[in-house]
Amino acid sequence: MSGVDLLTVGEALVSLRSSGPLLAGGPLSMHLAGAESNVAIGLARLGHRAAWVGRVGGDELGEFVLRQLRAEGVDTTAVRRDPARPTGLMFLERRTADVSRVQYHRAGSAGSALTVDDLRGPLAAGPRMVHLTGITPALSDSAREAAGWAARAAADAGIPVCLDVNHRAGLWSREAARATLFPLAGYASVVVASTDELDLVAQAGADEAAAAAGLLRRGVRTVLVKLGADGVRAYTAEGVRHVAAVPVTAVDTVGAGDAFTAGYLSGHLDGLDLVDRLGRAVTLGAFAVAGHGDWEGLPRRDELSLITGSAAGTTLR
Amino acid sequence: MSGVDLLTVGEALVSLRSSGPLLAGGPLSMHLAGAESNVAIGLARLGHRAAWVGRVGGDELGEFVLRQLRAEGVDTTAVRRDPARPTGLMFLERRTADVSRVQYHRAGSAGSALTVDDLRGPLAAGPRMVHLTGITPALSDSAREAAGWAARAAADAGIPVCLDVNHRAGLWSREAARATLFPLAGYASVVVASTDELDLVAQAGADEAAAAAGLLRRGVRTVLVKLGADGVRAYTAEGVRHVAAVPVTAVDTVGAGDAFTAGYLSGHLDGLDLVDRLGRAVTLGAFAVAGHGDWEGLPRRDELSLITGSAAGTTLR
Amino acid sequence: MSGVDLLTVGEALVSLRSSGPLLAGGPLSMHLAGAESNVAIGLARLGHRAAWVGRVGGDELGEFVLRQLRAEGVDTTAVRRDPARPTGLMFLERRTADVSRVQYHRAGSAGSALTVDDLRGPLAAGPRMVHLTGITPALSDSAREAAGWAARAAADAGIPVCLDVNHRAGLWSREAARATLFPLAGYASVVVASTDELDLVAQAGADEAAAAAGLLRRGVRTVLVKLGADGVRAYTAEGVRHVAAVPVTAVDTVGAGDAFTAGYLSGHLDGLDLVDRLGRAVTLGAFAVAGHGDWEGLPRRDELSLITGSAAGTTLR
Amino acid sequence: MSGVDLLTVGEALVSLRSSGPLLAGGPLSMHLAGAESNVAIGLARLGHRAAWVGRVGGDELGEFVLRQLRAEGVDTTAVRRDPARPTGLMFLERRTADVSRVQYHRAGSAGSALTVDDLRGPLAAGPRMVHLTGITPALSDSAREAAGWAARAAADAGIPVCLDVNHRAGLWSREAARATLFPLAGYASVVVASTDELDLVAQAGADEAAAAAGLLRRGVRTVLVKLGADGVRAYTAEGVRHVAAVPVTAVDTVGAGDAFTAGYLSGHLDGLDLVDRLGRAVTLGAFAVAGHGDWEGLPRRDELSLITGSAAGTTLR
Amino acid sequence: MSGVDLLTVGEALVSLRSSGPLLAGGPLSMHLAGAESNVAIGLARLGHRAAWVGRVGGDELGEFVLRQLRAEGVDTTAVRRDPARPTGLMFLERRTADVSRVQYHRAGSAGSALTVDDLRGPLAAGPRMVHLTGITPALSDSAREAAGWAARAAADAGIPVCLDVNHRAGLWSREAARATLFPLAGYASVVVASTDELDLVAQAGADEAAAAAGLLRRGVRTVLVKLGADGVRAYTAEGVRHVAAVPVTAVDTVGAGDAFTAGYLSGHLDGLDLVDRLGRAVTLGAFAVAGHGDWEGLPRRDELSLITGSAAGTTLR
Amino acid sequence: MSGVDLLTVGEALVSLRSSGPLLAGGPLSMHLAGAESNVAIGLARLGHRAAWVGRVGGDELGEFVLRQLRAEGVDTTAVRRDPARPTGLMFLERRTADVSRVQYHRAGSAGSALTVDDLRGPLAAGPRMVHLTGITPALSDSAREAAGWAARAAADAGIPVCLDVNHRAGLWSREAARATLFPLAGYASVVVASTDELDLVAQAGADEAAAAAGLLRRGVRTVLVKLGADGVRAYTAEGVRHVAAVPVTAVDTVGAGDAFTAGYLSGHLDGLDLVDRLGRAVTLGAFAVAGHGDWEGLPRRDELSLITGSAAGTTLR
Repeated sequence: MSGVDLLTVGEALVSLRSSGPLLAGGPLSMHLAGAESNVAIGLARLGHRAAWVGRVGGDELGEFVLRQLRAEGVDTTAVRRDPARPTGLMFLERRTADVSRVQYHRAGSAGSALTVDDLRGPLAAGPRMVHLTGITPALSDSAREAAGWAARAAADAGIPVCLDVNHRAGLWSREAARATLFPLAGYASVVVASTDELDLVAQAGADEAAAAAGLLRRGVRTVLVKLGADGVRAYTAEGVRHVAAVPVTAVDTVGAGDAFTAGYLSGHLDGLDLVDRLGRAVTLGAFAVAGHGDWEGLPRRDELSLITGSAAGTTLR
Repeated sequence: MSGVDLLTVGEALVSLRSSGPLLAGGPLSMHLAGAESNVAIGLARLGHRAAWVGRVGGDELGEFVLRQLRAEGVDTTAVRRDPARPTGLMFLERRTADVSRVQYHRAGSAGSALTVDDLRGPLAAGPRMVHLTGITPALSDSAREAAGWAARAAADAGIPVCLDVNHRAGLWSREAARATLFPLAGYASVVVASTDELDLVAQAGADEAAAAAGLLRRGVRTVLVKLGADGVRAYTAEGVRHVAAVPVTAVDTVGAGDAFTAGYLSGHLDGLDLVDRLGRAVTLGAFAVAGHGDWEGLPRRDELSLITGSAAGTTLR
Repeated sequence: MSGVDLLTVGEALVSLRSSGPLLAGGPLSMHLAGAESNVAIGLARLGHRAAWVGRVGGDELGEFVLRQLRAEGVDTTAVRRDPARPTGLMFLERRTADVSRVQYHRAGSAGSALTVDDLRGPLAAGPRMVHLTGITPALSDSAREAAGWAARAAADAGIPVCLDVNHRAGLWSREAARATLFPLAGYASVVVASTDELDLVAQAGADEAAAAAGLLRRGVRTVLVKLGADGVRAYTAEGVRHVAAVPVTAVDTVGAGDAFTAGYLSGHLDGLDLVDRLGRAVTLGAFAVAGHGDWEGLPRRDELSLITGSAAGTTLR
Repeated sequence: MSGVDLLTVGEALVSLRSSGPLLAGGPLSMHLAGAESNVAIGLARLGHRAAWVGRVGGDELGEFVLRQLRAEGVDTTAVRRDPARPTGLMFLERRTADVSRVQYHRAGSAGSALTVDDLRGPLAAGPRMVHLTGITPALSDSAREAAGWAARAAADAGIPVCLDVNHRAGLWSREAARATLFPLAGYASVVVASTDELDLVAQAGADEAAAAAGLLRRGVRTVLVKLGADGVRAYTAEGVRHVAAVPVTAVDTVGAGDAFTAGYLSGHLDGLDLVDRLGRAVTLGAFAVAGHGDWEGLPRRDELSLITGSAAGTTLR
Repeated sequence: MSGVDLLTVGEALVSLRSSGPLLAGGPLSMHLAGAESNVAIGLARLGHRAAWVGRVGGDELGEFVLRQLRAEGVDTTAVRRDPARPTGLMFLERRTADVSRVQYHRAGSAGSALTVDDLRGPLAAGPRMVHLTGITPALSDSAREAAGWAARAAADAGIPVCLDVNHRAGLWSREAARATLFPLAGYASVVVASTDELDLVAQAGADEAAAAAGLLRRGVRTVLVKLGADGVRAYTAEGVRHVAAVPVTAVDTVGAGDAFTAGYLSGHLDGLDLVDRLGRAVTLGAFAVAGHGDWEGLPRRDELSLITGSAAGTTLR
Repeated sequence: MSGVDLLTVGEALVSLRSSGPLLAGGPLSMHLAGAESNVAIGLARLGHRAAWVGRVGGDELGEFVLRQLRAEGVDTTAVRRDPARPTGLMFLERRTADVSRVQYHRAGSAGSALTVDDLRGPLAAGPRMVHLTGITPALSDSAREAAGWAARAAADAGIPVCLDVNHRAGLWSREAARATLFPLAGYASVVVASTDELDLVAQAGADEAAAAAGLLRRGVRTVLVKLGADGVRAYTAEGVRHVAAVPVTAVDTVGAGDAFTAGYLSGHLDGLDLVDRLGRAVTLGAFAVAGHGDWEGLPRRDELSLITGSAAGTTLR
C-alpha cells in the first residue's frame, strides 16, 4: 500500500436500490455505496492512487464490495474481513420522482466494528492525504475512536486531512454529531459541508461566514460549503470564492457531494489553484448528478471535457 | 362489510402497460386499473375503511385484481365473480413521451355486467359515503341502471354521493354521456369534473361558473373543477376557492384525477374544512403524478408530508 | 400474391405470455400466435413463398401482428383490417414447470369475423397448396362457412388441402367439432391429427388404424398422426410408416405441432418422398420444442442440419 | 380474528433472491418468506381461514410483508408492528444450478422480538389448529418463550398443534435445538420432520421407526417424515404408511416442506383420512417444486387436479 | 422493385445501446440503425413506397437488419448479402443524461463494401426520388464511388436527389469530407445540413446565407438548415423560411435529423408546398425526439395529429 | 508483476450473449470472454496469483475487460492498451436449448495485434507457470510469433508451459492449426485437448493412446484428454488415469474446458498428486457447467466443497 495519494477510511455498504416504492416489491439493484469509497473511486478514475480502508463481512456481500472496489482500481489491500459480522446494507428507495428514502441495516455491521488497529498500518504507509467523513464516528464507539485517532495521527504526521461533515440524521442526533465533529474538524485541513451542516462544526449561532471564519481560525485551510444546484463557496485565508454548478440534466443526485469532494481533492493532488480545484469539484458533481448511481457516472481524466455546460442532447460519433 | 367509510362502485380492469409503442411488441406490465378502485386504494392507504364493489371474471385476471385490492387493504367482500365473462382489459401505450393511448377490451366483460342486485347488500350495510364515476354508466345498460340506482338509493338514505364525471370518449359520445350524467349529478353531493367535462352535467352553453352554479342549485354541495397543473377550483354555497397544484416532477399523469378525488374525500371523512380538503386533494394528485402507475405512488398518512412543494432531489437518510 | 407456394387461412392472435402464475402479475411478453400463421412462418423461413390470410383489427395489436408476419417474409397482402373489431388475444400462462394454460379473448375478434369473401381473391391467385386447421371453424358461423368454402373451392380447383384437426376444447365441444370437421376432412389431401383428435374426423369407435383407413377411403392421401415425443405415424395407400422424434432438450412444446406440419409441407413442396417429408417434419418439431416461443426457434434452410439428435451442449465457434 | 381455521406463529421475512452468484451483483427479487407464513398461504389458497401472527418492523419492508399476506387472504389483524426494529431479511443465492445458499439478516429483527403477549389474543380467539416451527425458538429468548407458551396453551385448550422441526443450522446448533425442541414436541399433535431432523425430537440414537414410536408414546398423534423426492412416511397408532411424491419437473425446491405441511393440514381440516391427507400433502409439495418461489406456485382448490403425475408439457387450451 | 417512391442508399447497422456507461457492462439492446434506412422507414410508415439498398453480411446480424426493414414495410429486394464480411456494428452509449457516444465497428463491414454494381438495378427501376447521405462516401473507396455514381446517374435520369450532409467525425476529417461532399452536392436537388455542416458543401468562409446561396446557384433547389430545438431554415429561389420545432418532451435526440428529412421528403412526394413540407419535417422530428430509438417512434399517417405542440401529459382514452 | 504463480497470454474479448436466436433482436448481456483469461480467473478465485497479458483497445470495451479482470483479482499490470484498434468482440447466441453459435468480430482487433515485445516483460518477471492456448496463434502472424516465442522462452527458462489446444474452426483450418500447434506442443509440459483435437498435436493417424504417447516422448509431462461428461483421461510416464466428471445439472457448458484446466493448474501449484489435480479439475469443470457464464460460477477455495456430486436441490441455511 505504499505510494498512495489518498487514503479514505469508512464503511462501504451494499446499497439495494428500488426504482419505485419499496413496499411494491419490485426488483432491487445492488450497488456499492459509502461516502468514503465514493471519494476513493472518484480519485482512482482520474488516475490517482486511492486506497480505502474499513471492514467488510466474510459474507458474499463483502465479496461484492471488494469486487467493485478492485474493479475501480481502488487499493483494498488494507481492508479487513470480519467473519463474525455481516456487511452493512442500505435500501435506497425512490419514493417519488423527487424524494428518495434510505433505510440503513448497518447496526452491528462489520463496517461499524472499525478499530484504531485497523488503521495503523495504512496510515503508517504514508498517504499524501487522508479523507474522513462524519458518518464513521456515528457508527459505533470503536469507529468514533478510530476516526478520531486517524485525524489526530494524520495531523501529527503532517498529512492533510479532509473531513466531509455528511450528517446522517438516521444515525445520530445533531447534538451528538456536533459533540464529536466539532473537535474533529480541528484536525482537518479541508472541511466540506452543506449549508445546514456547517453549525455541526462551528460555534453555536454562527452564520455561514462566521462559521467558516471560526474553522479557519482553528487551523482549517479551506472550508467548502456545498450549495447544491448553486455550486460552492470556498473560504480560505485569502477570502471567499463562489463557483457555480455546471448545468446538466439531473437524474440522480445521490453521491454528488462525494463526487464534488473527489474533484476538489484531485485538483489538490494535481497542484491546481483554488479556482481550478473548485472547477474540477463542480465538474465531478455534474457527472454524478447526470448519471445513475452514486459513483458509476464519474469521469476518467480523458472524459472531464465531456461536460461543458452546454452539451444537452449531444451525440459524439 | 359493516363500518365502511367509503363504498366505491365500478369496474376494475387489468391494465397492460407498454413503455413504448405497442406495435413494437415490447414487454407489458400488469396493473390494476379503474377510477373507482383507485379512489378506494387512495383512501385505504390513508387509513380509511374503503370498499370496492363490482364484478370480476372467474379467470386468473380476476384473481389478480382481487389480490391487488386485498393487498391494499380494500374491502372486497362484496365483489362478485362472474364465471361466464372475462375480466376487463385495457392497453395503456406510451406512444410518445407526452402522449399515451388507451385501448379497451371491456366489451362483454364481467365488470360491464354489473347489476342493481350486486349493489343492494353493500349499500344496505351503510357506508359513510358512496363514490361513482361517469364510466360505469357507459359500460352497459345494466351497469347504467345500477349506477343510477346506487346514486338514488344512497341519496334516499342520506349517504353523500361523490360523482366524478370522468368522460371516456372511447366508450360513448358526449351526447349519450350527457343524457345519462346530467340527471345523475342531481343525486350527488360532490361533483368532480375537468374543465371540458363540466358541460356534461350542466345546462347547455353554460361557462364554468354558470355550470357550477347550476349544479349547486340542483343540490350539489361542492363542485370541484380539476385544472391539471393549475390545481383546482371549488364551488360551494360560500363561493369559489382556487388551490394551486403542488409542484413536483411529473412522470405519469394517469390516475392523478382519482388521487385528487381520494384526497378530497379523505379530508371530508376527517372533517377538514374546504381549504384543507383541497390541500389534501392536490397533495394526493402530486403523489400520483410524481410516481409511476395509476395508484402505486399514493401516500400513507405518515407520508403526506413527504411532498412539500420544494423537495426536488431530496434524499432522506 | 401470385406465385404463392402455400396459402394459410385462419386467425392470428397476440399471445401474452407470463413466465409464472398470471395472478402474480409479472411481466408479459407479446408474441404472434396462431396455428396457421405458425405454419406460414415455418415455410417462409425455409425459403418457400407463404401467404397468410385472415382479419386483424385496426388497432395497434393488428399492427404488431402484421409487423411480425412481414418480418418473417410472409405475404400479407390479402390480410384485411377490420376497424370495428379488436385483434384477438390470448394469455399463455406457465402455471407450473409442466402445465401451461391458455385463456382466449377472441370472442368478437376481427379474426373471428372472417368471411368467404375474404378468401376469394387469395384462392383465385392459385397457390400450390392450402392449409387450414380445425380452429377456424370454431370461431364463428362466418368463419366456419369460410373454412368450408375454402376447402371445397381448393379441392375443386385441384389445389391440395392440408387440414390440421387442432381441437381447441376452450372453443367448442368435441361433438360440435366432429359435426364440422368430419365432412371438412373429406376435402383434404393431408390430414394431421394427434391421437386423441383422430375420432373427430373418423367414424365413431374406430381405432387409429381404422380411422386412418377411413380417411384414406374418403380421398385423403396422407394421414399424419402426431405422437409427441414418440414421433409420427403416417398412413398412405402404401401403408403405415413410423418416424421417431429427434431427441432434443424440450423447453417449450407450444407450436411443435405447427412446426411439424410446416416441415411436412415443405418436404412436399420440395418433392421429397414420404420418409424425407416426415424427417423434415420431426426436425422442425425438434426446433420448435428446443426453443422458446411458438415459432421463434424455427430454422432457415441452412440451419436444418444444426439439430442432429446428438448435439446436446454444442457450441459452434 | 374469530373463526380462524389455522393460526400460524413465527417470523415472516423479506427474501432477496439472486438468480446467480451474489458477489456478481445482479438484480435481486423481493419475496415474502417464512415457513409459518408459507403454511398460512397454502391454506388460504385452498379456501381455509388462515391467520399469521408475528412482528414486522415499522419500515417499508414490513409494509411489503403485510401487503403480500393480505393479497393472499391471510388474516393479519393480530400482527404487531415494531417501530424500533427492522423487518428481518434473508438473501437466497442460487450459487449453482443445484446449490442455493441462505444468509440471514435477522439478528435483532422485529420478528425475533416476539413475546408471549403477542400471542395471547390470537390464541384466545380459538383457532381450530395452531402451527409452529422449530425456527421461532431459535430466534431469541423471548421468541423461544413465546413458542413454548403457545404450544402449551394450545394443548391446554385442546387445540391441536402442528410442529415442523425445520432445523436451521445457521441459527443454532443441533444440541441447542434438541434441548428446546424435544420438550416442545411433547405438546404437538402432528410432528413434521425430515429424516435428519428426527433425532432433534427423539431419544438419542433412535432410528426413524423408534423415534416415531417415541413421539407417539409421548402423545403425538401423527409423525410425518419428509423424504424429499421419495415422498413421505407417516407414523400413527395404526402403523406406518408411505406415499410417494408426485413426479414433476423440479425448478425450485425451496418451500416444498411448508407446502407439504399445508397440504396435510388442509386435509386434516377437511376431515380427510390419513392417506388422502398425505395425498394432498405430496400434491402441494409437487406444486411448490414445479414453480418458482417459496409459495407462489401453490394451488387454489380448483387447481389441485392440474398436477396428475403424468402431465409433462401439457398446454390447457 | 418497380414503382418505388424513394430509394435510399447506404449502410444499415446493428446499434447496440446501453442505458448507462458501457464500461459497467449492463445489458445492451439491439436496434437497426443507419441514417438512410431511418429515412426509408419514416416514409414507409407514412404509406410511401420506400426501398433501401446496401449490403449486409451473411450473418445473423444481417438477418436482424432485414427482419427489421421488412417489418417496417421497406422494400429490401435489392439488398445484397455479403457472405465474406460481417454486418456493421455500432455501440451507442448513454454516457450521461446529456452526452451519448458512438463507437463504430464498421471497418471492413459488408455495408462498407458497397459498389456501383449494387446500385445499377435499383436505380434503373426508376424511383421517384433518391436519398443519399454524406456517411456512405466515408465508408470506403468503393462506397464513395458508388455514392457519387448514384448521384450523377440519378441527376442524369432526372430523378431528384436528396443529400443529407451528416458529417461523421469518427469516420473522416472535415477536409476529406469536404473534398468529396462539395462536388456531390452539385447533383442534389435537396441538401440537408446542420449549421456546422454547411461549410462542407459550400465555399470556404461563407456564412449560412452565403453557403445556401452558393448551393442554390449550383442547381440545388432547396437547402434545409437544421437548427435542432430551434427548428429549420429553408433556402429556395423564393427566399428563406423559418419554421419552429414542435415542442415536445425530448427523451432521445438520435435520429431526429433523419426523421426531419423523411418528413420533408414525404411532403414533397405528397405535393405539399414548402411550408407544409417543413411542417411535416418538424413534426416527424418531434416524434423522433419524443420517443426512444432512432426511428421506433415515427408516426403512421393517422398518427401525425397526435403531436400538436400542446399535448404534454395527454392520455387518449 | 513479480511473484506471479501463473501467467496467461492471449486475447480477452467482450462476449455479447443472447438468450435466444440473435436475429430476433432480444437483449444482449456483456461478459468477459477468453480462454486464457478464464484460466487466470479460475486460479485467482482459488487464491493463486494469476496474471493475464494481452492487448485491449483504448475503447470503452477495453475498460470493461480491465474492470472485470481487476474485479477478479487478476494482475493486469502488463496489459497493453492499443488505441488504434478496437477490443475484440464475439456474439454467443443460444440458437436452441442444445446448440450455441459463436460469431467473432476479432479481425483487426487489439488482441490480435499481440507481439513478442508485449510478452518480454511479464515473462522476465519469472512466473511459476505459463498458460497458452491454440487460439492465440490463430489470430494473426504477430500473435502466432508471440505465442511461439513465449513457449520457447518459458521452456528455455525452465518455466513449465501449459498448452490447451482449443481448436477454433471459425479462425483457421485444421491443417493450418496442425502446422502451428504440433511444434508448439513440443515446448509444453502439460497439453490439454479434447478427443477430436488430439490429432492437431500428434502424428497423423495416431489413436488417442498413441497420440498421447507421442507427446510424452516429445517431452510433455502430462497429456490431459477432456471427455466432457465422461470426465478426463490423463497420460503420464506412469501410465493412464481416468477420472469421472462430477455429476451436476448442466446449464451452460461454455468455459468448462478452461475451468478444468484452471483446476488442474491450481492443483499443480498446490503440489497435489495427479489424482487430486484431476479431482480439482473436474470439480472446477462441474462448477462451470452448473452456472451461467464462462467463468462467473467458478469457486473460491472455501467453496470447493459445495459440489459433492450428490447435492441436487440443496439449500444451505
